[in-house]
Amino acid sequence: MSTSAQIGVTGLAVMGRNLARNFARNGYTVALHNRTASRTHSLVEEFGSEGTFIAAETAKDFVAALERPRRLVVMVKAGEPTDAVIEEFAPLLEPGDMIIDGGNAHFADTRRRERELREKGIHFVGMGVSGGEEGALNGPSIMPGGPKESYDSLGPMLEKISAKAADGAPCVTHVGPDGAGHFVKMVHNGIEYADMQLIGEAYQLLRDVAGYEPAQIAEIFRTWNTGRLDSYLIEITADVLSHVDAATGKPFVDVVVDQAEQKGTGRWTVQIALDLGVPVSGIAEAVFARSLSGHAELREASRELAGPKATALSEAEAGAFADRVEQALYASKIVSYTQGFHEIAAAREEYDWDIDLGAVSSIWRGGCIIRAAFLDRIRAAYDTRADLPSLLSDNTFAQEIADAQDDWREVIIAATRQGVPVPGFSAALAYYDALRAERLPAALTQGQRDFFGAHTYRRTDREGSFHTLWGGDRSEVSG
Amino acid sequence: MSTSAQIGVTGLAVMGRNLARNFARNGYTVALHNRTASRTHSLVEEFGSEGTFIAAETAKDFVAALERPRRLVVMVKAGEPTDAVIEEFAPLLEPGDMIIDGGNAHFADTRRRERELREKGIHFVGMGVSGGEEGALNGPSIMPGGPKESYDSLGPMLEKISAKAADGAPCVTHVGPDGAGHFVKMVHNGIEYADMQLIGEAYQLLRDVAGYEPAQIAEIFRTWNTGRLDSYLIEITADVLSHVDAATGKPFVDVVVDQAEQKGTGRWTVQIALDLGVPVSGIAEAVFARSLSGHAELREASRELAGPKATALSEAEAGAFADRVEQALYASKIVSYTQGFHEIAAAREEYDWDIDLGAVSSIWRGGCIIRAAFLDRIRAAYDTRADLPSLLSDNTFAQEIADAQDDWREVIIAATRQGVPVPGFSAALAYYDALRAERLPAALTQGQRDFFGAHTYRRTDREGSFHTLWGGDRSEVSG
Repeated sequence: MSTSAQIGVTGLAVMGRNLARNFARNGYTVALHNRTASRTHSLVEEFGSEGTFIAAETAKDFVAALERPRRLVVMVKAGEPTDAVIEEFAPLLEPGDMIIDGGNAHFADTRRRERELREKGIHFVGMGVSGGEEGALNGPSIMPGGPKESYDSLGPMLEKISAKAADGAPCVTHVGPDGAGHFVKMVHNGIEYADMQLIGEAYQLLRDVAGYEPAQIAEIFRTWNTGRLDSYLIEITADVLSHVDAATGKPFVDVVVDQAEQKGTGRWTVQIALDLGVPVSGIAEAVFARSLSGHAELREASRELAGPKATALSEAEAGAFADRVEQALYASKIVSYTQGFHEIAAAREEYDWDIDLGAVSSIWRGGCIIRAAFLDRIRAAYDTRADLPSLLSDNTFAQEIADAQDDWREVIIAATRQGVPVPGFSAALAYYDALRAERLPAALTQGQRDFFGAHTYRRTDREGSFHTLWGGDRSEVSG
Repeated sequence: MSTSAQIGVTGLAVMGRNLARNFARNGYTVALHNRTASRTHSLVEEFGSEGTFIAAETAKDFVAALERPRRLVVMVKAGEPTDAVIEEFAPLLEPGDMIIDGGNAHFADTRRRERELREKGIHFVGMGVSGGEEGALNGPSIMPGGPKESYDSLGPMLEKISAKAADGAPCVTHVGPDGAGHFVKMVHNGIEYADMQLIGEAYQLLRDVAGYEPAQIAEIFRTWNTGRLDSYLIEITADVLSHVDAATGKPFVDVVVDQAEQKGTGRWTVQIALDLGVPVSGIAEAVFARSLSGHAELREASRELAGPKATALSEAEAGAFADRVEQALYASKIVSYTQGFHEIAAAREEYDWDIDLGAVSSIWRGGCIIRAAFLDRIRAAYDTRADLPSLLSDNTFAQEIADAQDDWREVIIAATRQGVPVPGFSAALAYYDALRAERLPAALTQGQRDFFGAHTYRRTDREGSFHTLWGGDRSEVSG
């Protein structure tokens, strides 16, 4: 057995296999391991010509095949399988070796594993990988966390196999310590949910309010894709909408059951935002919209609920309305990203991570599902001002929303009047209007809480906390 | 030491103390215990005349003072303190004895504790108590879970100390096994958040769109409180809004800092709904609105964001608008409760609990924060049809929303046009419109997911799961 592999991959389902091939195609010698060895051998048989692989049948052989410090990429299911693999390999490793978890782990698990392995001198790198099978093979967006020093030797390899942005920059950076990489990957997915929901609402409005057919809507998305909304998701939306079902001759989108599924990272994004006290209403509405769509029995029972009379737009009105929907979609998208980046910033503070938000937007520019021209603008915003309190504080975005807001409001008004659900657009606008509000009804909330629970309140005119004797003479006392 | 106490309370902070007094006032002999005995003695000194107390200094004396089967109410902080108390007392108890946790425990902790104690033959009752200090003393709404048989002997005592609804029915029932009681208490609090947020939005609209002053708005709420919105929260809203700050002569609500606080049960309600796949968008927006209000730095940075030009209503228009706001508030409230009861129904299925939703609405009619005439209508809905798929499926509610919907939409339209944030109203309407939609854009979402992740989709015209070869000839294969 030679010890010449620069990297090893254990877990050779489609993501692991493609990542291994990606390393090999980029000139690295790749050690391979899988619980059932047949998968290891079939990879070598099928793709052996793409580079240099070392097939190992046992964990011991696998570890022995790796150069020191060893770099061992784990591509198994998140949760218990990941812990099982770590338990199997950790005793075979030496201080300075790296275990790199490329699965979709919960960042709290990654933090725990990093802490446990650190005690043994092993570097644990929780690494978010986005781009699906195709990205894993041809260049994903990679979000590694873990010890900074591990990036010194691992980083150049990841930079080689990663996607490249339009300017040639590799879509990978050392995100931050311990769970920072998986955290950022999770928020990426949460933003992806919001992007998809907003696109869905735009589609529904173009269909139900403007009266366009899917093929026409596909053309509208294609046009949008040449402008500021230029992105992978808009591009594939046009492809999906223009696709015709061969079996029925109907638009493909009309033969698909309208019940969306989900795997969990969107839900995590919202649950953790709640713990961090960050309002991510747009992402939450996207997650809820998927779960609502799946409650077939509830929807069936609700079909007869009263709705407004819908009135069709004329052709000329429809065209103008489509332009407005673009504005609404763009403004709502700015808000989604504002919320997502707020969540990352809040976690950075909570966990004392050193995350560069501009770098995060930069590595999302290629390889991943939310890749978009838009991310260049976010990077520019953070380049201009690294301590931006919020994306909405960036002058360019603020101006764009100022220009878009009349149309944004009119689109929501039309949807409200016609009975088309736009939870994402509405949540985004409510967030925007709440943030800029001089006063919020939260003052009334505090008054109520003090009334029924003596929870006290603060005053605008002096320091301290206060309580009103609501059940007594309603005088005020210190809280 | 006599062994004559029918019930014991350990943990004599304000909630425990008031609950103990409530038992004593109702003729029960109450054993008392607290980690620092001075608190026990001061209770007896101050309130000894209200009934029969047995003060115990040690855990052993406390347990010895209780009749068998022993009923031991734990009123300490949720989390570790509760576990510590259980660990202290469990070894002193015998099979058939009961530990009753009256704190705000997370239902998952309650499930764990119930399981652990069941092995020792001890009955663990997780008991939600709502109504604050005042309710604990004079009659709370009580939501006990745990083994049904423990309710046989505990129930009559709880019925005695609980609040009574207008028809005289005690506001307590055996909610269901293990964590069911604490779960239902949690959802009660989530609904409370939503109720308060909706009231806040109504207030803001009456102030910023209709142009009313707080004292005038208080009168409007007072009027509403004589109709179908009759409830404790509407009542105290009027009191808070009519209150004038003595120090400044200004409306009280204007001198309170508009940053709302929260303790955690609202957040839990949303987090668990996400796990259960239940859309609780109204409750989520209420939780987010509180956290948004608290981000002073973000709000400060956002003050200059562009908004629409607001136009004031005439006096006549304002009156009509106020009536519309009542409709919007009522319709949104129906949706909040629909979401909350859906969450309870989903948990009932997930955890195999036997929860009677009509009974839940019934015990919320008195003693708790969300007590309202409205809950009689919910009970009537479940009386009419116990297996109601959703509150919206009840004919009365469906008709009321049908009657309200034009106004509901117009209120949201006015808010959208004038830049007043109404996340709660909007989320409720979007939920309503999505539930009744013939088709949702979830079909497009499934198409996108199949495109970028080969996640497959179902077809409307035949069984099975399918995948389109998007990167190939776009033919369809079985998934």
